[in-house]
Amino acid sequence: MPLLVQKYGGTSLGSKERIEAVAEKVIAYKDQGNDMVVVVSAMSGETNRLVAMAQEIDPNPKGRELDVLLTTGEQVTIALLAMALHKRGYAAKSYTGAQARIITDSRHNKARIKSIDHEKIRRDLKSGNIVVVAGFQGIDEENNITTLGRGGSDTTGVALAAALKADECQIFTDVDGVYTTDPRVVPEARRLKTLTYEEMLEMASLGSKVLQIRAVEFARKYEVPIRVLSSFEEGEGTLITTDDEADETMEQALISGIAFNRDEAQLTINGVADTPGVAYQILGPVSDANIEVDMILQNIGADGTTDFTFTVHRNDYEAALASLKQTAKKLKAREVTGNNRIVKISIVGVGMRSHAGIASRMFELLANEGINILMISTSEIKISVVVDEKYLELAVRALHEGFDLKSES
Amino acid sequence: MPLLVQKYGGTSLGSKERIEAVAEKVIAYKDQGNDMVVVVSAMSGETNRLVAMAQEIDPNPKGRELDVLLTTGEQVTIALLAMALHKRGYAAKSYTGAQARIITDSRHNKARIKSIDHEKIRRDLKSGNIVVVAGFQGIDEENNITTLGRGGSDTTGVALAAALKADECQIFTDVDGVYTTDPRVVPEARRLKTLTYEEMLEMASLGSKVLQIRAVEFARKYEVPIRVLSSFEEGEGTLITTDDEADETMEQALISGIAFNRDEAQLTINGVADTPGVAYQILGPVSDANIEVDMILQNIGADGTTDFTFTVHRNDYEAALASLKQTAKKLKAREVTGNNRIVKISIVGVGMRSHAGIASRMFELLANEGINILMISTSEIKISVVVDEKYLELAVRALHEGFDLKSES
Repeated sequence: MPLLVQKYGGTSLGSKERIEAVAEKVIAYKDQGNDMVVVVSAMSGETNRLVAMAQEIDPNPKGRELDVLLTTGEQVTIALLAMALHKRGYAAKSYTGAQARIITDSRHNKARIKSIDHEKIRRDLKSGNIVVVAGFQGIDEENNITTLGRGGSDTTGVALAAALKADECQIFTDVDGVYTTDPRVVPEARRLKTLTYEEMLEMASLGSKVLQIRAVEFARKYEVPIRVLSSFEEGEGTLITTDDEADETMEQALISGIAFNRDEAQLTINGVADTPGVAYQILGPVSDANIEVDMILQNIGADGTTDFTFTVHRNDYEAALASLKQTAKKLKAREVTGNNRIVKISIVGVGMRSHAGIASRMFELLANEGINILMISTSEIKISVVVDEKYLELAVRALHEGFDLKSES
Repeated sequence: MPLLVQKYGGTSLGSKERIEAVAEKVIAYKDQGNDMVVVVSAMSGETNRLVAMAQEIDPNPKGRELDVLLTTGEQVTIALLAMALHKRGYAAKSYTGAQARIITDSRHNKARIKSIDHEKIRRDLKSGNIVVVAGFQGIDEENNITTLGRGGSDTTGVALAAALKADECQIFTDVDGVYTTDPRVVPEARRLKTLTYEEMLEMASLGSKVLQIRAVEFARKYEVPIRVLSSFEEGEGTLITTDDEADETMEQALISGIAFNRDEAQLTINGVADTPGVAYQILGPVSDANIEVDMILQNIGADGTTDFTFTVHRNDYEAALASLKQTAKKLKAREVTGNNRIVKISIVGVGMRSHAGIASRMFELLANEGINILMISTSEIKISVVVDEKYLELAVRALHEGFDLKSES
């Protein structure tokens, strides 16, 4: 009997009516002859409500106790969904993270799954139960309650699918799949039928919030096919799978999608003496201030000095600028400049591996629109550029059109 | 170092401010040099909110899933209280029922505690932690989440005190102790300094809602001293303990208190042939209808028939009456009568054991007020009478005055 793991997010479970709709959906799959494991998040708004309660008492609550508090959110949902299934005449059993023996490390609020003891779940499935598991949560080896961090329910779903060797892990969300780009920017954006894990990772890391990155990494490692589907509409969604599987089913497009990120800011330090260790001297203090750095570029100048540019999250811009100015004084750098009105745009596709000339085609398309490129960075299946934020829509539309993403190729 | 187990109810924890007040109180005891274990209920209103959520989905949810749902209530409180303690610079650790290894049987919604594995709690106490435990909840041997039924947090407190051999189990509530009778009926009612377990059991079973009966039974079995205290006022409260302990500290009063119960209804079947098994034939169908019977009286009539009277909860009156009428037909009884405007009033006291004449003094006091007694039942330390509900206040005041309960004897 095929085994499906389905994950429903908070929006899909935000009310009594929605929980009942999820129950009906799960039952439809069960009636088609599938064994069903359902992973659920807290009802939408619940986690925020709990965080607010905690912060009223302590703005910086200890991770251990915050996890005890937050995990009540999914515990409510598993019970209610199991009840809705019972009410419809189906055997169902709920599991908290602890009961499902989802063992994690002890890093509260951002724990990682180490193992799942799925023996009991298998037994329940065998006896005909629909198994409902709380996403986002686990326990460490000392029985402390842990959480996987926001969005961790995706990871729970994939990890369970891997442990149970499920045929598919289906992630139900409020969009009906992964698109070539954001349809709010390009109305012609098209839903992708398949995508490789690598492509999804690049898309996700660039702000496409459909799936949690860690879940995709997990799925890639254990080769769990993930399907992104809408909770509210019918459809086949987008299947995320291995290269080989994707190749079989896939229109070998050059690029699969265009991702972008509006939350970037760029900082540059010019005229630094190019000595060993200079990168560390510049980025060390930034990192010490808990600021994450995204793109990093270093150019060698003509006069034995170097120019050093990096991007950070826009929220961290002021702090990073202050840090950089201090460093500049110490290193006797010529000047520090910054720009927090930039965006990053990336084209993503495994097709790049076997096709030359994609980068130059990208630059050509942007040049045709008179868009100035501020930074470039490339990986095996991705080319990213930084441009002035005013060009975002123009650039994304030009690339979407230029790489012919709107048509089913 | 003395070890105290303190239990705080939902009203004591009903808001952020109240949780913080409990934290301050716990800290005061800790600073006095006590090891502290704190058992908490769900915030007031929370359990009702969760039950309502469940019933929206299924008016009769399965016990297992209802327990999963309800136990989130205390889980929220343990986390928040631990945070409030941390914020004040105290080491604290929260435990769910599962984490405290409070092992129960598998009767969902009314489980009984079988054992507590307190090794971890001891370790945490030793390293200076205040231990915060979720009341009302446990797990069965299959790791299913269970609850002890409403008011079960008292039982958790006493069970933990027994397991940890605590010096005292302190139950903080919204009254400052156990009174000779309800002060709303008799303003002169006096707080008792001590009371025996047996007396408390009789008082509790008669509607004095200060302590859960099962908790008192547990405390008696393991000889755990319980002290009832107010969360909101200072004071010594009432100590509930063994006969011997109570004797030492106690003014040997004839009776300790007057309890009453307004929720009674009386049913009588007259003129039943007095054959073996008649009691079963009458009460069997009542019990089959899930109606609990309280007092039972059987009088032998003159003509070889018998009259049979019993009391039930007032809510069950109509159902019991219907059942009894059917039985009457079958047994060819003369008639069935009922009265749902009665109350039960009891005087309770270990002093009765060694003093004769208390019953007749009680009847005399009632007769002086012209109060007609409908039923009488006695136990070793209690005499109960059923009277018309209109006499309740008059009777209780006459007994309180007549047995001289208002003065410190």
